[in-house]
Amino acid sequence: MIKVAYQGEPGAYSESASKAYFPGNIKLLPSETFALVFKRIQDGEADFGVIPVENSLYGSIFETYDLLLRYSHKITGELKLAINHYLMGYKKYNIADLKRIYSHPQALGQCSEFLGSLKNTEIIPIYDTAGAARNIMNSKEEFAAAIAGKGAAGNYGLKIIKGNISNDKENYTRFLVITSEERKVRVEGSRLKTSICFGLKSVPGALFKALSVFALRDINLTKIESRPIPQKTFQYMFYIDLAGGQNDEPVKNAIMHLREFTESVRILGCYDTGRVIK
Amino acid sequence: MIKVAYQGEPGAYSESASKAYFPGNIKLLPSETFALVFKRIQDGEADFGVIPVENSLYGSIFETYDLLLRYSHKITGELKLAINHYLMGYKKYNIADLKRIYSHPQALGQCSEFLGSLKNTEIIPIYDTAGAARNIMNSKEEFAAAIAGKGAAGNYGLKIIKGNISNDKENYTRFLVITSEERKVRVEGSRLKTSICFGLKSVPGALFKALSVFALRDINLTKIESRPIPQKTFQYMFYIDLAGGQNDEPVKNAIMHLREFTESVRILGCYDTGRVIK
Repeated sequence: MIKVAYQGEPGAYSESASKAYFPGNIKLLPSETFALVFKRIQDGEADFGVIPVENSLYGSIFETYDLLLRYSHKITGELKLAINHYLMGYKKYNIADLKRIYSHPQALGQCSEFLGSLKNTEIIPIYDTAGAARNIMNSKEEFAAAIAGKGAAGNYGLKIIKGNISNDKENYTRFLVITSEERKVRVEGSRLKTSICFGLKSVPGALFKALSVFALRDINLTKIESRPIPQKTFQYMFYIDLAGGQNDEPVKNAIMHLREFTESVRILGCYDTGRVIK
Repeated sequence: MIKVAYQGEPGAYSESASKAYFPGNIKLLPSETFALVFKRIQDGEADFGVIPVENSLYGSIFETYDLLLRYSHKITGELKLAINHYLMGYKKYNIADLKRIYSHPQALGQCSEFLGSLKNTEIIPIYDTAGAARNIMNSKEEFAAAIAGKGAAGNYGLKIIKGNISNDKENYTRFLVITSEERKVRVEGSRLKTSICFGLKSVPGALFKALSVFALRDINLTKIESRPIPQKTFQYMFYIDLAGGQNDEPVKNAIMHLREFTESVRILGCYDTGRVIK
């Protein structure tokens, strides 16, 4: 049976993403931290990891980028999960009667318009959406609610008090599926993308030159991200997602060209462009 | 007297940055959130705001970028503050006797090697470094310590238990000084930089073309950042810092050129390259 590690508690959005990507019978390994997901793959405890890399409202998730660099795992897939926040409690309370609402600060921020309309309800940030739901199940706290995904309500037997409480209805998180560098994976197909990272010499026009290797070959970039290099104050590593497979002739040539004037180039993975899971 | 708003409690790193940038007699306005700093400038309650935009280890601070876009304030200065974490308590306890250590998760992460060497000490993440110090002063909790800047120890009368507890000795936060768009500020000098932001049409090579307007004029980019556009799933706004003043002929021409093929261009500010404050 395939073993899949994700960050968070049972019922977390990452668990929903894991189940959507691996629809068969799998063993799920909830993990306390992102780093533990990477470590479990290295130790052979997990075959795959499913980790968020970007949210359409919040932006990139830095820790994932930094861990991709620290470990030599490869990306072998992605998917985009629609994020729908639900208000849930131990009983189906009236919203006006709620004394406390718990959730992750990011989820609270994404529901700020709904929360702003409440009077006399204390809003309490905690470290995990699914963890907020689990705490309520454990404590059976009266007139309290958690904001989390539908999966958390099902998992912890909580009642949905209200759905559709986000400010923006368009809220997606992009997840990466990662695996050990030794595992053989398919790198052919019609909707492939390739993720690479590289360090740049600190000279004028360095990024422009790096991007030129793709522009000159009409290769489309779907995402660019930069992360500071810890030992080099205010210098950066760049991460690029590009449309095309790593064995496509133009992509191979572009990466060879890039190696001529960058500090280091690493192919993080080549994989099918992800489906959107509603 | 000049009124300067910053995010955090008295004793926060942002307060140290405010005092370093405005060395005279100023009125400091500690503010609960980044958004409140921006609002106080809009309401005329504050003349300036001092907000972190980037840390050399952690990376960019998204909320600052998003607020720069939402408000029409301008950037009028910057400085880089060396971040030194200190362990402090109500008494000068032996480290081996400490039962609990409180701080912001980012500060805890930056001191993970020191913290990992402790046995039987509970590490508790809370929302603010200076707030951790204040809590300890208020509660007089025995055998407890906070990790915060030296300013917090002075401010709350705590004893330094240990300094130099960060993993990396090179840790800087870059702060921006912002003010209302109506305030007249100087945009001339020899070490000027200009910050701009723009949205890109979603076509192949769009970013490459945008960067070409600077590369063709030998204008050096010191930072590039992208942020998702909330209503346009997985499309981005780009933020660029460039070396040069907004009235320099090449910079003026580059921005005019950029306007030809971008959705929108806004000059966020023109200001002196910041000093490093140790």
